[in-house]
Amino acid sequence: MRKSRRGQVDPFIVMDVVDAARRLEEAGRSIIHMEVGQPGTPAPAAARAALARAMEAGPLGYTVALGIPELRRGIAQLYARWYGVDLDPDRVIVTAGSSGAFLLAFTALFDAGDRVGLGEPGYPSYRQILRALSLEPVGIPTSDANRLQPVPADLAGIDMQGLIVASPGNPSGTMLARDHLSGLMQAARARDIAFISDEIYHGLHYADRATSALEISDQAYVINSFSKYFSMTGWRIGWMVVPEDHIRTVERLAQNMFICPPHASQIAALAALDCVDELEANRAVYAENRRLMLEGLPKAGFTRIAPPDGAFYIYADVSDLTDDSLALSRELLEEAGVAVTPGLDFDPLRGARTLRFSYARATADITEGLRRLQAHMQTRAKRS
Amino acid sequence: MRKSRRGQVDPFIVMDVVDAARRLEEAGRSIIHMEVGQPGTPAPAAARAALARAMEAGPLGYTVALGIPELRRGIAQLYARWYGVDLDPDRVIVTAGSSGAFLLAFTALFDAGDRVGLGEPGYPSYRQILRALSLEPVGIPTSDANRLQPVPADLAGIDMQGLIVASPGNPSGTMLARDHLSGLMQAARARDIAFISDEIYHGLHYADRATSALEISDQAYVINSFSKYFSMTGWRIGWMVVPEDHIRTVERLAQNMFICPPHASQIAALAALDCVDELEANRAVYAENRRLMLEGLPKAGFTRIAPPDGAFYIYADVSDLTDDSLALSRELLEEAGVAVTPGLDFDPLRGARTLRFSYARATADITEGLRRLQAHMQTRAKRS
Repeated sequence: MRKSRRGQVDPFIVMDVVDAARRLEEAGRSIIHMEVGQPGTPAPAAARAALARAMEAGPLGYTVALGIPELRRGIAQLYARWYGVDLDPDRVIVTAGSSGAFLLAFTALFDAGDRVGLGEPGYPSYRQILRALSLEPVGIPTSDANRLQPVPADLAGIDMQGLIVASPGNPSGTMLARDHLSGLMQAARARDIAFISDEIYHGLHYADRATSALEISDQAYVINSFSKYFSMTGWRIGWMVVPEDHIRTVERLAQNMFICPPHASQIAALAALDCVDELEANRAVYAENRRLMLEGLPKAGFTRIAPPDGAFYIYADVSDLTDDSLALSRELLEEAGVAVTPGLDFDPLRGARTLRFSYARATADITEGLRRLQAHMQTRAKRS
Repeated sequence: MRKSRRGQVDPFIVMDVVDAARRLEEAGRSIIHMEVGQPGTPAPAAARAALARAMEAGPLGYTVALGIPELRRGIAQLYARWYGVDLDPDRVIVTAGSSGAFLLAFTALFDAGDRVGLGEPGYPSYRQILRALSLEPVGIPTSDANRLQPVPADLAGIDMQGLIVASPGNPSGTMLARDHLSGLMQAARARDIAFISDEIYHGLHYADRATSALEISDQAYVINSFSKYFSMTGWRIGWMVVPEDHIRTVERLAQNMFICPPHASQIAALAALDCVDELEANRAVYAENRRLMLEGLPKAGFTRIAPPDGAFYIYADVSDLTDDSLALSRELLEEAGVAVTPGLDFDPLRGARTLRFSYARATADITEGLRRLQAHMQTRAKRS
């Protein structure tokens, strides 16, 4: 049977590591998971309780395509709480995770053949979703000097119809300062480049909070999710804020492409908005984990790390250790019992010399993982 | 901010009726809902109980992209139970509803500009999802003589790379007999046309069961869902069976486009597979509702109806009453207090002379709806 060209997207190289880790665990080995991109905590208790009640109270059929009005209002209020931004709830589109938001954004904004810029390193699925929708991803190499984020000068001379930025970034954890974000938005606007701001790690900062694109201008698609700060990855529930004159377009697409976001997840998400204490306690764990990582990774020999402003990642340049990050990650898995992510999925150019360490799990795991990394890297240094 | 051409999909005309019905209800009017495409019943009790337990037992994070292995095995076993087909669970892709399955199927099979045939009348979102993905829907008018289903002769001379059929169909409720389905599959295969069989209403039949494309050949994408027979619309959980050599392609697309289907919904769906008694009780209600409709609609003057083999719809040719089905549906809503769906969304050519009546709700509603329709149509006949 026929297959499309656009359906032939790249495999995730990290799946190699994930599969190998699972096999080792099945064989009885203890593995510390620093490769994961999700919290180890469940959805907040009150969110689960709200769903348990709702399941017995009504049929949980389809909702309207843009999401339960109360949830849209609750998300709009989050913009007041977090950023002091007055947001019309009509502009909030509830989506099936940020994944659903990307599918809606890319189809609403771009036609087949359009080119969309994205900073490298970056979230690998941007590139693959764009390809699957017959769009052309345009990698924009970033520099350490610019905190692994694109700057307006990087856009010069590149033909593109869209630009995606992420702050805090994945894998880097670095943020765009407000004036840098503003500069990118202005540069894009001047050239009719649609601006998409991926803010999925907002809420997870350890000094200054991240700036939302909505603090600067309404002329952007802003994508966020309940997955990370709200600890609800598997629930597939997120949102997108669009300019007022795009609401009807996105609504029609959402009606047809998704019918509605998962009803049960919407109920849980609405309750999660109020679970500030539990979520801030989660964040305190990440903060402690991050402190341990910043202290422990250099002791293991991982000294060249990106400024870890937010999210729950440390991105390390390991070019002093290897030019084959996949081999190094296999070594760390097999010999040290620590799973980490090679940079290859995030950065086709330089990812062979980078690793991503996640500190999203329990603090005891982080402590043990750092101990193992230090012990292994010490032995390794003696060997060579 | 720029918008794409492909994002400009058609509005749902039925939304007019839905909005008007809501306004009338808010104003205190009693409305009988024969416009809905979903059960009034909740997910089976054991499915809800399984999720309530799972929520307290673990974090419900991401699952693997193709779905929980136990659920994939359970779905494969359903093919043995329903059709006597031996299906490899590896070929089962769990999806975010049939909507998610269509997005995966269309991107895995077709490139921008490809043409995909679909019988008219049919599910309107096929057309709109295809457009949003830069594909060209090709409407194939069907005839009463062929039970409003396409036949091989209809494909002659039409350039297309794909064909979607649905049996039982929406809005028609008609089925493709096994030899007709087989004939379409052979005709498609001979011309390298990818064959997609939408089997979302399987399980909801009132005489002979529907034939699955998988009973005939493995060379098809078969799409189904927990929404209809399993009464789980709002949970956004469905599945797709693909040829063995398409699994890896679809897996990579699913990893990037969706990460995974909703974890909570997967837990509930797994338990729903075993809820035969509750689901068969739901079906008995539909069967009684259908009996009442087939008796009552002709008494109201809706005499030209498609063979109502399955699903929970009656599709009526009302050309003896009107050539403006939207106006007639507004009249039935405002004057009789019964919401029905005009055919326009399903069939751009002939939908102005058709209505779809759903009998998915409680039997008491059906009885009252039929009483209102009969009373109104009697008065109407006297007026004219």
